[in-house]
Amino acid sequence: MDDAGVSLQAKMIAMGEAARAGARALRLASAEQRTTALQAMAKAIREDAAPILAANARDIAQAKANGLSGPMLDRLLLDEARLEAMAAGVEVVAALADPLGVATARWTRPNGLDIARVRTPIGVIAMIYESRPNVTADAAALCVRSGNAVILRGGSECLASSLAIHAAIVRGLKAAGLPASAVQAVGTADRAAVGHILAGLNRAVDLIIPRGGKSLVARVQAEARAPVLGHLEGLNHVFVHAAADPRKAVEIALNAKMRRVSVCGSAETLLVDRAVADRLLPLLADALIKAGCELRGDAAALVIEPTMKKAQEADWSTEYLAPILSVAVVDGVAGAAAHIARYGSGHTDAIVTEDAAAAEAFAAEVDSAIVLINASTQFADGGEFGFGAEIGIATDKLHARGPVGAEQLTTFKYVVRGTGQTRP
Amino acid sequence: MDDAGVSLQAKMIAMGEAARAGARALRLASAEQRTTALQAMAKAIREDAAPILAANARDIAQAKANGLSGPMLDRLLLDEARLEAMAAGVEVVAALADPLGVATARWTRPNGLDIARVRTPIGVIAMIYESRPNVTADAAALCVRSGNAVILRGGSECLASSLAIHAAIVRGLKAAGLPASAVQAVGTADRAAVGHILAGLNRAVDLIIPRGGKSLVARVQAEARAPVLGHLEGLNHVFVHAAADPRKAVEIALNAKMRRVSVCGSAETLLVDRAVADRLLPLLADALIKAGCELRGDAAALVIEPTMKKAQEADWSTEYLAPILSVAVVDGVAGAAAHIARYGSGHTDAIVTEDAAAAEAFAAEVDSAIVLINASTQFADGGEFGFGAEIGIATDKLHARGPVGAEQLTTFKYVVRGTGQTRP
Repeated sequence: MDDAGVSLQAKMIAMGEAARAGARALRLASAEQRTTALQAMAKAIREDAAPILAANARDIAQAKANGLSGPMLDRLLLDEARLEAMAAGVEVVAALADPLGVATARWTRPNGLDIARVRTPIGVIAMIYESRPNVTADAAALCVRSGNAVILRGGSECLASSLAIHAAIVRGLKAAGLPASAVQAVGTADRAAVGHILAGLNRAVDLIIPRGGKSLVARVQAEARAPVLGHLEGLNHVFVHAAADPRKAVEIALNAKMRRVSVCGSAETLLVDRAVADRLLPLLADALIKAGCELRGDAAALVIEPTMKKAQEADWSTEYLAPILSVAVVDGVAGAAAHIARYGSGHTDAIVTEDAAAAEAFAAEVDSAIVLINASTQFADGGEFGFGAEIGIATDKLHARGPVGAEQLTTFKYVVRGTGQTRP
Repeated sequence: MDDAGVSLQAKMIAMGEAARAGARALRLASAEQRTTALQAMAKAIREDAAPILAANARDIAQAKANGLSGPMLDRLLLDEARLEAMAAGVEVVAALADPLGVATARWTRPNGLDIARVRTPIGVIAMIYESRPNVTADAAALCVRSGNAVILRGGSECLASSLAIHAAIVRGLKAAGLPASAVQAVGTADRAAVGHILAGLNRAVDLIIPRGGKSLVARVQAEARAPVLGHLEGLNHVFVHAAADPRKAVEIALNAKMRRVSVCGSAETLLVDRAVADRLLPLLADALIKAGCELRGDAAALVIEPTMKKAQEADWSTEYLAPILSVAVVDGVAGAAAHIARYGSGHTDAIVTEDAAAAEAFAAEVDSAIVLINASTQFADGGEFGFGAEIGIATDKLHARGPVGAEQLTTFKYVVRGTGQTRP
């Protein structure tokens, strides 16, 4: 390793040590103090509009020079409105009920021991993300609300923007008497920094959260020497059941696929109950095609709608993130559930039906983080769940599942109060 | 890989596939059906007393031939009383409130969406453990209660006992109409089987739980390609605060160290507040030494009790699991918390004090899975918490922390009920 490598490693280890101190300060801070910090962070972001937008202009110029354009470039862009939305988002988190210190369970044992399960912070979280600069503010806000120190490692393509936002965040922390070590940002685009974080920074990192494309998440899951809260793809289904209200079916399928095709909550496969396929598939296909969606059907769907492209086996497990939808005809709830178990990613799946028993059977059978009855899969979002903001949608089953907000970034301890009890 | 290797791998992969089917059956079974299975399992264990004890006699003979003796041999031993305790333990789990299907939170959004967070099983759990044959019954019972299929890989030294117990468990499952794939046991002592489990059995394993010595847990954490619920050592402290009741301090310190020295809830370090060390340390030392405990003190402790051995730096981070206790004099709650943060393992720590404010400060400051006020660290046990049985004490912070019972072996899904909502 060259001198620069040694020095980066030393810097990163020092950052981990500082984060432990920051975590302790946040853990012992009161809810009011953390709320004050969040409010001050929002205020500082607004005050720093000029330097943040100037830094973003530098990122955008560099991105254009690197050949970025279209939606990719748009994701990097900040303007007055987006900056205001970012500050307002931090204020929403400031207004959330504080998750810490709450006893989620409490009981007394026959020997008189009083046992309380109390929410506590996890400790030090390392957040590794790509592109959108607002993640810097969202992640910092959720971590402060949940009492966790965070090490932010944003994408190199918006490094200047992230560092400018981070400077405002630090001013907010200090205004509330909290140390800068509570929210740190990696100041270099050197990708070796990610390797050091994945190695755990000398055991200083309690949890690593990757947010970005498949290759980033895969690398983190393969290399991390600390627990990872992964969020993988959303291979989401809308199942139109025999007892579906046709109008709701069309509106939900259309919204689930087409509202925004690039989000993880968008639908990728439409399942239609064989009992009503003849009648409903034409309505569904008509609405989707008119909205600009390409359909790829299985053999049974093609019989009803011969204009569709034929779906290949790979279509059932492809997250298009584009105006394309695969369509399969299935036999009832059991058929839909079997298709979802085989091809789904355990993210978000919906049923459209007026039959309450079928709805509950679907909800019981489908083992996904979010199961919706008569609602669009695009509701798979922390904000829509009322979490204020989200770190991502977890598709792992351990610890957190679905939208990850402040409460999901906590753990707990047992506080046992006795009067001198010893164990026989 | 030789033929036997290929065939073991194929067998293990098939076991993983079967476990997925078993998990589905358990997930869809009613609480009553799983309760019936647990009751039938307990009955079958009692009915099979003769073959189980005969199998255990073979394990014991082999262990003696391998040179095992004393407590190591005793851990393997089953007799009528231990077998009855095992069956009774399964009945306690049968009587536990079913954790599944419970909505742990439910709220309605302004758009009318009704969101419920509902407990569900994790899926397939692989349990890798050593020595004590009762773990086979405990783990199977907790997994059935929590709706998880389990693959049991017990230690080779009690393989015959475990397989005999497993045969009874399978009869219990079948009596309730549940498939044998819900609880499977690896039938070979070949250590390569562990490697296949750690590789994840073709993504069939959702969670790996190691229970055993440091080297087993370390191997699992290093090699596992699936999430691990680790339970590491208990480097536990008893802090005698300035406002401690002397009688409680002596009783708690004595019980925490000496009740059973080989359990993970035993105390390894005694911290005494400088303000009362002159007065209380002699009382504490006297009781502990009389009970057969060796004390190793820091400089300040040695001034008060010159007969102690001098503690070395390594003593503060050694889990003795023996009648040895390190003793340090510290300055108040802050001093105790600093010592615990530096040397503790985040397992279980206790304060003895009559000062409520000091007790709450200690509970807030010490970041361990279990913090006790005026009670012995030996209460760190799922049974003592009222969980019926335990898989172990988790020292990780993610997902579960502290005693792992049936409820801790669940995850959740969000069930969102709408009336046709689409997202604007």
